[in-house]
Amino acid sequence: MIYFNCDYNEGAHEKVLQRLVETNMEQTEGYGCDPYCRAAEELIRRKCQAPDAAVHFLVGGTQTNAIVIAAALRPHQGVAAAATAHVNVHETGAIEAGGHKVLVLPAKEGKITASQIDECYQAHVRDDAFEHIVQPKLVYLSQPTELGTLYTLKELEEIAEVCRRDGLYLYIDGARLGYGLAAEGNDVTMQDLARLCDVFYIGGTKVGALFGEAVVISNPVLRQDFRYIMKQRGGMLAKGRLLGLQFLALFEDDLYLEISRHADRLADRIREAFDRKKIPFLVKSRTNQLFPILPDKDLEWLSEKYCYSYQERIDDTHSAVRFCTSWATAEEAVEQLIRDIDKIEGDPAAG
Amino acid sequence: MIYFNCDYNEGAHEKVLQRLVETNMEQTEGYGCDPYCRAAEELIRRKCQAPDAAVHFLVGGTQTNAIVIAAALRPHQGVAAAATAHVNVHETGAIEAGGHKVLVLPAKEGKITASQIDECYQAHVRDDAFEHIVQPKLVYLSQPTELGTLYTLKELEEIAEVCRRDGLYLYIDGARLGYGLAAEGNDVTMQDLARLCDVFYIGGTKVGALFGEAVVISNPVLRQDFRYIMKQRGGMLAKGRLLGLQFLALFEDDLYLEISRHADRLADRIREAFDRKKIPFLVKSRTNQLFPILPDKDLEWLSEKYCYSYQERIDDTHSAVRFCTSWATAEEAVEQLIRDIDKIEGDPAAG
Amino acid sequence: MIYFNCDYNEGAHEKVLQRLVETNMEQTEGYGCDPYCRAAEELIRRKCQAPDAAVHFLVGGTQTNAIVIAAALRPHQGVAAAATAHVNVHETGAIEAGGHKVLVLPAKEGKITASQIDECYQAHVRDDAFEHIVQPKLVYLSQPTELGTLYTLKELEEIAEVCRRDGLYLYIDGARLGYGLAAEGNDVTMQDLARLCDVFYIGGTKVGALFGEAVVISNPVLRQDFRYIMKQRGGMLAKGRLLGLQFLALFEDDLYLEISRHADRLADRIREAFDRKKIPFLVKSRTNQLFPILPDKDLEWLSEKYCYSYQERIDDTHSAVRFCTSWATAEEAVEQLIRDIDKIEGDPAAG
Amino acid sequence: MIYFNCDYNEGAHEKVLQRLVETNMEQTEGYGCDPYCRAAEELIRRKCQAPDAAVHFLVGGTQTNAIVIAAALRPHQGVAAAATAHVNVHETGAIEAGGHKVLVLPAKEGKITASQIDECYQAHVRDDAFEHIVQPKLVYLSQPTELGTLYTLKELEEIAEVCRRDGLYLYIDGARLGYGLAAEGNDVTMQDLARLCDVFYIGGTKVGALFGEAVVISNPVLRQDFRYIMKQRGGMLAKGRLLGLQFLALFEDDLYLEISRHADRLADRIREAFDRKKIPFLVKSRTNQLFPILPDKDLEWLSEKYCYSYQERIDDTHSAVRFCTSWATAEEAVEQLIRDIDKIEGDPAAG
Repeated sequence: MIYFNCDYNEGAHEKVLQRLVETNMEQTEGYGCDPYCRAAEELIRRKCQAPDAAVHFLVGGTQTNAIVIAAALRPHQGVAAAATAHVNVHETGAIEAGGHKVLVLPAKEGKITASQIDECYQAHVRDDAFEHIVQPKLVYLSQPTELGTLYTLKELEEIAEVCRRDGLYLYIDGARLGYGLAAEGNDVTMQDLARLCDVFYIGGTKVGALFGEAVVISNPVLRQDFRYIMKQRGGMLAKGRLLGLQFLALFEDDLYLEISRHADRLADRIREAFDRKKIPFLVKSRTNQLFPILPDKDLEWLSEKYCYSYQERIDDTHSAVRFCTSWATAEEAVEQLIRDIDKIEGDPAAG
Repeated sequence: MIYFNCDYNEGAHEKVLQRLVETNMEQTEGYGCDPYCRAAEELIRRKCQAPDAAVHFLVGGTQTNAIVIAAALRPHQGVAAAATAHVNVHETGAIEAGGHKVLVLPAKEGKITASQIDECYQAHVRDDAFEHIVQPKLVYLSQPTELGTLYTLKELEEIAEVCRRDGLYLYIDGARLGYGLAAEGNDVTMQDLARLCDVFYIGGTKVGALFGEAVVISNPVLRQDFRYIMKQRGGMLAKGRLLGLQFLALFEDDLYLEISRHADRLADRIREAFDRKKIPFLVKSRTNQLFPILPDKDLEWLSEKYCYSYQERIDDTHSAVRFCTSWATAEEAVEQLIRDIDKIEGDPAAG
Repeated sequence: MIYFNCDYNEGAHEKVLQRLVETNMEQTEGYGCDPYCRAAEELIRRKCQAPDAAVHFLVGGTQTNAIVIAAALRPHQGVAAAATAHVNVHETGAIEAGGHKVLVLPAKEGKITASQIDECYQAHVRDDAFEHIVQPKLVYLSQPTELGTLYTLKELEEIAEVCRRDGLYLYIDGARLGYGLAAEGNDVTMQDLARLCDVFYIGGTKVGALFGEAVVISNPVLRQDFRYIMKQRGGMLAKGRLLGLQFLALFEDDLYLEISRHADRLADRIREAFDRKKIPFLVKSRTNQLFPILPDKDLEWLSEKYCYSYQERIDDTHSAVRFCTSWATAEEAVEQLIRDIDKIEGDPAAG
Repeated sequence: MIYFNCDYNEGAHEKVLQRLVETNMEQTEGYGCDPYCRAAEELIRRKCQAPDAAVHFLVGGTQTNAIVIAAALRPHQGVAAAATAHVNVHETGAIEAGGHKVLVLPAKEGKITASQIDECYQAHVRDDAFEHIVQPKLVYLSQPTELGTLYTLKELEEIAEVCRRDGLYLYIDGARLGYGLAAEGNDVTMQDLARLCDVFYIGGTKVGALFGEAVVISNPVLRQDFRYIMKQRGGMLAKGRLLGLQFLALFEDDLYLEISRHADRLADRIREAFDRKKIPFLVKSRTNQLFPILPDKDLEWLSEKYCYSYQERIDDTHSAVRFCTSWATAEEAVEQLIRDIDKIEGDPAAG
């Protein structure tokens, strides 16, 4: 069985693991107060050209979202997010467990727009009963989105401008950030994110680390007492250096980008294979997640060799599924998959 | 200025107030442990033909919803409700502040259906990632709905059956219950609610009381330790008898139904006036809330004499607004309004 | 049976009730946006000589404490309070339900000191693991305390100075404030409280109102969006004017002080009766709560005529109990009690 | 600088790390649904002789405590724990952030007794105002305690009996469980814990793992939907196998006990060195944490060579500090420390 179902089926990139092995018996301070974390924070600040940003390391994405939002909001404030946003649909209500409502905006290909955000804010302000309604205060985006699509620099700049005008925090979930940075056609850099967001995170778990996310906080208001909230929400790793070491490995020599490019390039090849067979996609993306719409009968035999994830039913005989590549995907696995795609009979669904 | 904007512009029905005045200097136990509360509980149990139900009195609707839901759910469980549900849109995120997500179902005229509820449940169960998604556990309805519409007995029976089958609690918010019970065409009684729901509440604030809601808990599981949660969430009134006394006044001699009928009948007359002018409604209802769609130019002069509430923009020149009657609405006020409705020019919006 | 067990056994002072009756059928805006609330807010600001303070009305004390604290604190911040504080022991964990720890300081006669508060703050700051510990941020006092004692002006000034120096909010729970203001020897005024506290509340429920507490917020930071939190926590009364009207009645003509003085004077007479019999007290106070230590055998026969509340066991044959007077206590009831105290045999406990 | 300040200064035991390295590029399901987690769960069940227990893996101790307690309690229920309990003092209010009060019991050498627990329960039940007070529902112990002491089997059996009688859950935090199991004089086994507790956890982070704790749930009520709560609270590791693999390495061949014994034996040697110099201890323990009371002048020069942690001031010239050994402590480091202890002048504090 070959796993294309998600981008966290393996352990860590060998250089990441190597770092953990080399330093294993060193003695350091705990809780992220060690020299490796310090160095990794500094390295990330440099990569982001954000010398004043605070950088913190956390273990996973749900944890990171919950902590950032708990640290940012007062009890009556909510999170504006796409209907498809991870915080809305795949975190078992972690945001609500922290006391905050997710204010759902209809998404198009996983994305929301500056004008949707502004309208959400303005509708609140002009409502006579505004105090009876959750106050929008933080905008949550993911880059790439849950559907593998990307915001363009222009889109992000427009969103950031609306947020600043309306007094909203802009937060970007970068669980798969590497695959966005390395994608064909992407024009958004980490420096852009640090400049445009109040806070964002760089995902490690899905991009070469055993686990780990690096939160970059540009807005000084959001930096205050952040580590208290980390500790309270169970996000302060005792052996914090494990996180610093992994991000050092990922960002020295630009390993992060290099391995993301590997995944994106393999995804491109699979995409082209589907295209050749005129298989439509639920959404067109250039990152490591592909959402082809396939005949159920083909999915049946494919599922004997490949693990993919189910997305949604399209019609009586077709389903959208997800194939992911990652830093760890083997060329041969992709070649085998492509050969099998070529065997699909060619009864393309109406997309 | 005559107020038709809501159903809580005045104080209490004179018989309710009378009771408070008569008993004012009596000494009783606090916190709802007095003989008046006991008697009111018993009276309500009798009216509901629910001899084993627990009855508790609370001060207001948002408080009641928050307490019932906090008492019923574990942290990972959510509330399935119509998009238009009060808990979803007009309680400043009280449910989320208690840690629970509102799972929004598209509403039709303020209502949701048994099959929507079942689908919400089934979709959760069959999702591969079900543990990553909030578990539906309680269904919230309002009767009448926020748009003044009513569930029929058949609809409620179907919903109750789905809830029992799927292990969901059924909770009905009866903030305006009286206006539902007294409406033309209604076929749902309090006994039906006690029989079909796990828990529901009888609204007093909007139906003749100074304030107060009576929670009726049929399901024994939900009764346990309910008063702890009341106290913790600030809902246990020190002079609890004020609530018992008001509900005694409302339910002895069926005052509750009588005054609700008054409101509904006046609403019917206003409805007929709009109908005569071919003014369309956002939603057709037979209870005390009317949602006519009016030309903005007419709304302008009407707003000089009447206070109504704004509902939503329909098109460039028309808006939906809300006119409410209540137990306290004066016949003359309605007659004056009807005369003014007759002056509307008759440029009916496309409904 | 005569009730001395607490100060909320009756309804409201007749002048308060009168106001509700007079205005009963008037139509006003809801949610505290009516002219009576406006007038009461203004009157309280004037009485407090705090022209910029925000004044909000809530229904009860637990609700008020929960809302003030939810509005003031971030998730990692806690409430420093006496071990005997109402928020620590008698609100079913309402503060914790809002996410905040109560940092308990040992109390002496229900009170804590400026130096205890400073030490609590300093201990946090100097702890190496400070981020692993709840950050003290708000100091909760009650005036009078739960044991009927009073802070002197000097004590409050010292506490306020420490709070300002250490960046802590000072919040005073005035559930029984009237009985403090009117007590023999008291030197603290409402103006002092408005000047020294960031926020405090004036209790109505126990001092002449049917229900109601008036929150006075001096610190502009704490004013922001306060009504959102009120709504979210179920504390925004639909017919908000009921609160404004009651506080108008209580503060016009200084009724609040006058009726408090009545209660305190009657308590003084009961105290003197105990003193004459050399009955010791758990705590010496001059407000409306008395905590005599009585032989169990006398408590037995007293309990057939009087309702008092049990405080704690002192030794094998003695218990401390609580007798309260209130604005509503009848002179004759006190005279009867005094005659019965005179019958106590005179086997005084070792205090 | 040699670190004796805590037991998480290094990475993982080489056999643990070896497992991660060996399996690094294998593909498995995520979220703990892989064969390694299954095998580790089964192994732990066997070691505990608890064939029906649920076993779940989490990343750290604060997270584990927060999740277990969130899963177990209703909103009005609290956690009875020693004043010195980790959940009370070193988790930044994580339990309160989850909505629950910690009901503090005075501790003796870090421990509480069955009779204290029973009294806490009985006091609640017999209080007239019980609904105004947090309901005790879960008892939290740590084994070893935060002060390195151990409950005996007899003590635990008494506590478990009280808990069962009073309907309280018994939960044991085993962050340092190995050092307890391996201690001289210990008579409590993992089987005892599985038999006596409703739920407990086996600490990995401090005993040979990179990170990780294994929760063992004996009580079927507490098993229900546990993984939802794990996910919601950010405790479900994407690459869950990392936890299963580590616990497999720790529990195959009893590595866990073997490396714990190493730490305890080294601690014994350091203890003997202090004893020889008549240095008193804050608390006598036989596990890996030592709390000697040392003259400040000696601490000064010791701190140039050793990192220890500060516990508390004893008098003007003495402080209690903590020296920890661990699975990773080198014999030579201990020998060097012993030589230095021998140089302490011998001005023993009054203990």
